[in-house]
Amino acid sequence: LRPGQGTRDHPPAQAALRERLLSAVVSCFKRHGAAAIDTPVLELRETLMGKYGEDTKLIYELQDQGGELLALRYDLTVPFARYLAMNKVTNMKRYHVAKVYRRDNPATTRGRYREFYQCDFDIAGQFDPMIPDAECLKIVHEILSDLQLGDFVIKVNDRRILNGVFAVCGVPESKFIPACSTVDKLDKAPWEEVRSEMVGEKGLSPEAADRIGEYVQLHGGLELIERLLQDPQLSQNKLAKEGLGDMKLLFEYLTLFGITGKISFDLSLARGLDYYTGVIFEAVLLQQENEHVEEAVSVGSVAGGGRYDGLVGMFDPKGRKVPCVGVSIGIERIFSILEQRLEASGEKLRTTETQVLVATPQKHLLPARLKLISELWDAGIKAEMLYKKDPKLLKQLQYCEDTGIPLAAIVGEQELADGVVKLRDVATREEVRM
Amino acid sequence: LRPGQGTRDHPPAQAALRERLLSAVVSCFKRHGAAAIDTPVLELRETLMGKYGEDTKLIYELQDQGGELLALRYDLTVPFARYLAMNKVTNMKRYHVAKVYRRDNPATTRGRYREFYQCDFDIAGQFDPMIPDAECLKIVHEILSDLQLGDFVIKVNDRRILNGVFAVCGVPESKFIPACSTVDKLDKAPWEEVRSEMVGEKGLSPEAADRIGEYVQLHGGLELIERLLQDPQLSQNKLAKEGLGDMKLLFEYLTLFGITGKISFDLSLARGLDYYTGVIFEAVLLQQENEHVEEAVSVGSVAGGGRYDGLVGMFDPKGRKVPCVGVSIGIERIFSILEQRLEASGEKLRTTETQVLVATPQKHLLPARLKLISELWDAGIKAEMLYKKDPKLLKQLQYCEDTGIPLAAIVGEQELADGVVKLRDVATREEVRM
Repeated sequence: LRPGQGTRDHPPAQAALRERLLSAVVSCFKRHGAAAIDTPVLELRETLMGKYGEDTKLIYELQDQGGELLALRYDLTVPFARYLAMNKVTNMKRYHVAKVYRRDNPATTRGRYREFYQCDFDIAGQFDPMIPDAECLKIVHEILSDLQLGDFVIKVNDRRILNGVFAVCGVPESKFIPACSTVDKLDKAPWEEVRSEMVGEKGLSPEAADRIGEYVQLHGGLELIERLLQDPQLSQNKLAKEGLGDMKLLFEYLTLFGITGKISFDLSLARGLDYYTGVIFEAVLLQQENEHVEEAVSVGSVAGGGRYDGLVGMFDPKGRKVPCVGVSIGIERIFSILEQRLEASGEKLRTTETQVLVATPQKHLLPARLKLISELWDAGIKAEMLYKKDPKLLKQLQYCEDTGIPLAAIVGEQELADGVVKLRDVATREEVRM
Repeated sequence: LRPGQGTRDHPPAQAALRERLLSAVVSCFKRHGAAAIDTPVLELRETLMGKYGEDTKLIYELQDQGGELLALRYDLTVPFARYLAMNKVTNMKRYHVAKVYRRDNPATTRGRYREFYQCDFDIAGQFDPMIPDAECLKIVHEILSDLQLGDFVIKVNDRRILNGVFAVCGVPESKFIPACSTVDKLDKAPWEEVRSEMVGEKGLSPEAADRIGEYVQLHGGLELIERLLQDPQLSQNKLAKEGLGDMKLLFEYLTLFGITGKISFDLSLARGLDYYTGVIFEAVLLQQENEHVEEAVSVGSVAGGGRYDGLVGMFDPKGRKVPCVGVSIGIERIFSILEQRLEASGEKLRTTETQVLVATPQKHLLPARLKLISELWDAGIKAEMLYKKDPKLLKQLQYCEDTGIPLAAIVGEQELADGVVKLRDVATREEVRM
């Protein structure tokens, strides 16, 4: 007896932790003026096809039971683009917190599941360059700071810069996407491995691969952007020049936001998905493996996103584009970290919010309990009672201690006769009659 | 370009209304001390099979893409029972608000969809009779009253009473379930039609059908329970006697809760699902079709539930039972009603919570806006700005009016020089420098 592979139940303690986490993320999205939308988990299969490149094979398809061919959404971005195109919306700031589905190899200890939550914030519309992009990075910075996850860095790059690099290194345009998805592996594999995949599987020339290697191992800040803007080859490439110009503008805005300390312009960042067209970014947590070792070790991506100016146009019959930029918070990995931390701390989250237990000390007082609890509920007070006709007072108080209920409202024969209730503070055992 | 048949997007205005509605329901569940759990949308196909009788054909199955055979959950009750059995939980009060899936004929104008939210509250455990059952009815009463949906009635019956009726009317036990699902149609069809289905399709004798007809057309309160307890046939039937005894106890508790005015003991109530074993109930809204017509017209069920003492045992290898009773709030139908009402009133719900727009009255002040808005966000204030380098002040104020933002924080050259911000009340146009 079990749930499906790569999926899991959330018992109350986990559900309470998740509610706390999601509410921190959603309140950040609301702080930035986003409206909520909801789209179905079921999408027409054709809506999802041709949007995810190699990952299309990870889409869950429904059986043909007559009627339409359906699939489970793979992310919240493609449904958002479908929504914008369908309703001819050209301007929108929205968030969406919901489950998505991927037939991936689950790695549940690292927080990778087949059914998992995504928390997305996106800005759609034609605006002045880099202003919405900078806000997305600010949001990542706010959320990771709020959640006190420890030190982090947000890597930033631009698909146009990467494509410019490929072009000046002599890669034919038809191989930009495969080259890009190979570069994407640099966060997990050393350059030598990535290089050999480029030459072996992807068919790039060894010379091209070596020249790419010189670029994609660079990372830094504004000074690196300036240096690359002067690079004799890159500065001749239109795409790279545009990308670097915008990157410089982005850094200007991030300086005004005061967050460049956590931003790294990193040419190895590629992001897996096909649909990105401009700025891309990814936040990783850093962990001091050992206080004596200076180098910080990455424990993986906890947020990512970027600009996708072409996706909405893929859904529009006339190909009308709506530029978009967005961020997705990797809530499952963050959840795993918080869960481990909570476990280590020994702290117990309350799973209910009950304020008062209605209790009786003698037998035959069920009617008194039912009447009192009904009055409390009607007054908006969170109240419970034991579902027994004649529970022992000790059992009732024990229940309060087990579940963290702070107060007991006790009605006994004496209280009934006097028309009062005895209110007991469970922790201090103080009692008042009222 | 569209979502799948029988599913729908929620644009911001609908998402905001839904959030308001769900939060009213959830706060009632929390008021009654329930903890949240979450279970996957994907369940193993075998988990769902054999639980829904005739409705099993409405389950969405996933394509076999290698690995396990999966299906989309049909309700939240069977996954809850699976959860209890799997974790050997014998005592739990939980709520679960989530989407479920049914390959039904959609009737979207009446709020019937293929993907829709359910809001469930259930109490699992061996307790003294009718105390948790009474609480479920109290919850329905509280929610429908809170939401001000107009007059309603909660019909109550008991599967044991129905089975007792079938037995004393001469129906063989093998036909109890078909007879029950036929009786269930009495809320939509007149007795004559139901009778002819019983005799024609279900193969009951005309005499049995006629005798059933005499019982299932009865409804009333405590006096009806008392009368049936004296009924020469029913009082001889063990099941019916138990059911009637518990129904009497239930009415006692509901009297203490002060809600019997909205409760009707109705022998025609049968509920479609196979797994109910005891008390069943269903709330319907009443609508005065016309002030001169006395009879109220039912606009359909908005909540329902009942006792299912055998379901958890179906998942336990040793068949160990965990008695359960629960209620499901029909949120989609309620949502349709509130939506129509909102539309009729002309009221516009705000879709964002932004408190202040950061604005500039002259050109070249983007840096000032970025700095100020960043300070506001860091202070937890919900703030927006237009994503333009040099927007006109009028456009900025217009945006406040369009989206309901109450305040504008304006920084111009003068304010920058003086080190102040001009705060403008958008509605009254009053301004203060601070």
